[in-house]
Amino acid sequence: MPELRKDPVVGRWVIIATERAQRPSDFSVPEQKRATTSCVFCAGRERETPPERFALRPESSGPDTPGWQVRVVPNKYPALSGAGDPQREGLGMCDLMDGIGAHEVIVETPEHGKDLAELSEDQIARVLQTYRQRIEALREDSRLKYVLIFKNQGRAAGASLEHAHSQLIATPITPKRVKEKLVGAKRHYDYRRRCIFCDYIIQETDLFGERMVMDEEHFVVLSPFAARFPFEMWILPKRHAADYASISAGEIANLASTLKRILTKLRVTLGNPPFNYVLHQAPFRRPRGGYWTTIEEDYHWHIELIPRLTRIAGFEWGSGFYINPTPPEVAAETLRDVAG
Amino acid sequence: MPELRKDPVVGRWVIIATERAQRPSDFSVPEQKRATTSCVFCAGRERETPPERFALRPESSGPDTPGWQVRVVPNKYPALSGAGDPQREGLGMCDLMDGIGAHEVIVETPEHGKDLAELSEDQIARVLQTYRQRIEALREDSRLKYVLIFKNQGRAAGASLEHAHSQLIATPITPKRVKEKLVGAKRHYDYRRRCIFCDYIIQETDLFGERMVMDEEHFVVLSPFAARFPFEMWILPKRHAADYASISAGEIANLASTLKRILTKLRVTLGNPPFNYVLHQAPFRRPRGGYWTTIEEDYHWHIELIPRLTRIAGFEWGSGFYINPTPPEVAAETLRDVAG
Repeated sequence: MPELRKDPVVGRWVIIATERAQRPSDFSVPEQKRATTSCVFCAGRERETPPERFALRPESSGPDTPGWQVRVVPNKYPALSGAGDPQREGLGMCDLMDGIGAHEVIVETPEHGKDLAELSEDQIARVLQTYRQRIEALREDSRLKYVLIFKNQGRAAGASLEHAHSQLIATPITPKRVKEKLVGAKRHYDYRRRCIFCDYIIQETDLFGERMVMDEEHFVVLSPFAARFPFEMWILPKRHAADYASISAGEIANLASTLKRILTKLRVTLGNPPFNYVLHQAPFRRPRGGYWTTIEEDYHWHIELIPRLTRIAGFEWGSGFYINPTPPEVAAETLRDVAG
Repeated sequence: MPELRKDPVVGRWVIIATERAQRPSDFSVPEQKRATTSCVFCAGRERETPPERFALRPESSGPDTPGWQVRVVPNKYPALSGAGDPQREGLGMCDLMDGIGAHEVIVETPEHGKDLAELSEDQIARVLQTYRQRIEALREDSRLKYVLIFKNQGRAAGASLEHAHSQLIATPITPKRVKEKLVGAKRHYDYRRRCIFCDYIIQETDLFGERMVMDEEHFVVLSPFAARFPFEMWILPKRHAADYASISAGEIANLASTLKRILTKLRVTLGNPPFNYVLHQAPFRRPRGGYWTTIEEDYHWHIELIPRLTRIAGFEWGSGFYINPTPPEVAAETLRDVAG
């Protein structure tokens, strides 16, 4: 069973993933496999993954058989697992709890060798619809507080398999970086009674404009003022909403085309760079109530998109400070000017 | 002039390093150069670096000439620079200030091709003594709040030059991760009137022991309970002190031998892995006072040592949560058992 451990100084939780336990000899870096034509995520090899949790497939086809369009399976080496109790335990001055949660892989297409950006808008929309379905399904487990959906593309971004996929990790605590955002947004809301992200969209769209990359029907894409990384971008819905799960069919279609275009722009500009994206949303709210009483009004879901172009070194680890050699205005201008 | 920009949501400052400005075409990754026998950090090529800020050298030798043992020069592509004013400026809802500070390279040896671990204990002690000198010198600049000393070894850890060196960046604000540690330590102190790091050393040494790696005269080395990374270690002085600059000659000698031994152990265990270490200490305190009134008692300097064995991917970026496949007890046991 994986363990969750809390650092007594900064209060950061860490997953000690015993299921993935590695001994020193396991750290030799494997050569990057290329040009494989088939893997366990491909149509026809459904029996080689753990049983599927969800799939978009014709009603005539059974689970774990071909015919699906998007398929969700548990991660074979899960960082967190389903069994256990969310009770905390003290160990001297340290905190410990069972590593409960979920770790799932969202296979974005049955076809091997195509990146997300190369899929049709309809297929990307199915992936986005699957995100919503998984969030809604995992919300039913009252032990869970948060679902983080993310995508690693390319080895330097942490992907170990080439076949196009996203992942989700559901956790029994609200992650630290999410809390920081919630706290920052609440501080703004408490003073102004307005959402900080809504204010930020207005500032960047109407007042400045130089960091805007795309302005679509339901979404804006911009490079944030204090971008940590070259070509870092945020995708923000124009309609205020704390939860991704509230997204409408029309918004999903628009997000799919926005995502396809921005990933294509990145590809053209930087030559298919490795990247991560992360979906940020409000934690699950339970009837017994939490401390985020205003969360419907003060938080605003969004996607952070980070091309992995620079290396994180000692200074960044030690300080939490980032050095970004590309001003976001330059990144935004470059991306605005290329086709996508 | 570099710029400091603050994220309006989470309050994280970022350095927009225009001196290092990069266009998309600059991100192609250069091949790793190996087996170079000489570089600008070598003895005899002093005129090819910016003029030295400090050196340990015989009195008979002049600055920027050979004969030195440890040499400090400004970084050629500094993330922060000397000129400017630490006044903040508003830009809509965002904060901005001049990127003032210092960015220096500490060349650890005149000899090319030797790693820090391969230097003599006396030479490592000179490097550690140079750290103290630079901290004391930079403290004189009243615009500065913090000096972060760090080392990147190996390309995957962010080093772009092979010649053994450390770096320092001095900043006009206290970095976010440092603040988190200060806040956590203060919280503990306010309640217990004891230093959290002193308590932690007692717990790990006397109560548990399983995460201890080395127990030396003046220092302990341990893998922290909530280690984020495989083989992450903390080097903690046994004597309580908030500032590294208070280190004595005897402690420097003991730290040099401890560092040499632990780096040798890492080398033996993991085959010369890339690593970062970071020196954490209290921010500079000025007569006008700050908000950290108890800082002498509640903070405790230390070194974080992180072998770079795993990749940081979307989940870690998005959540601030880390997945560590190697329990710290396993790492500590392995390291205890090898020679160093």
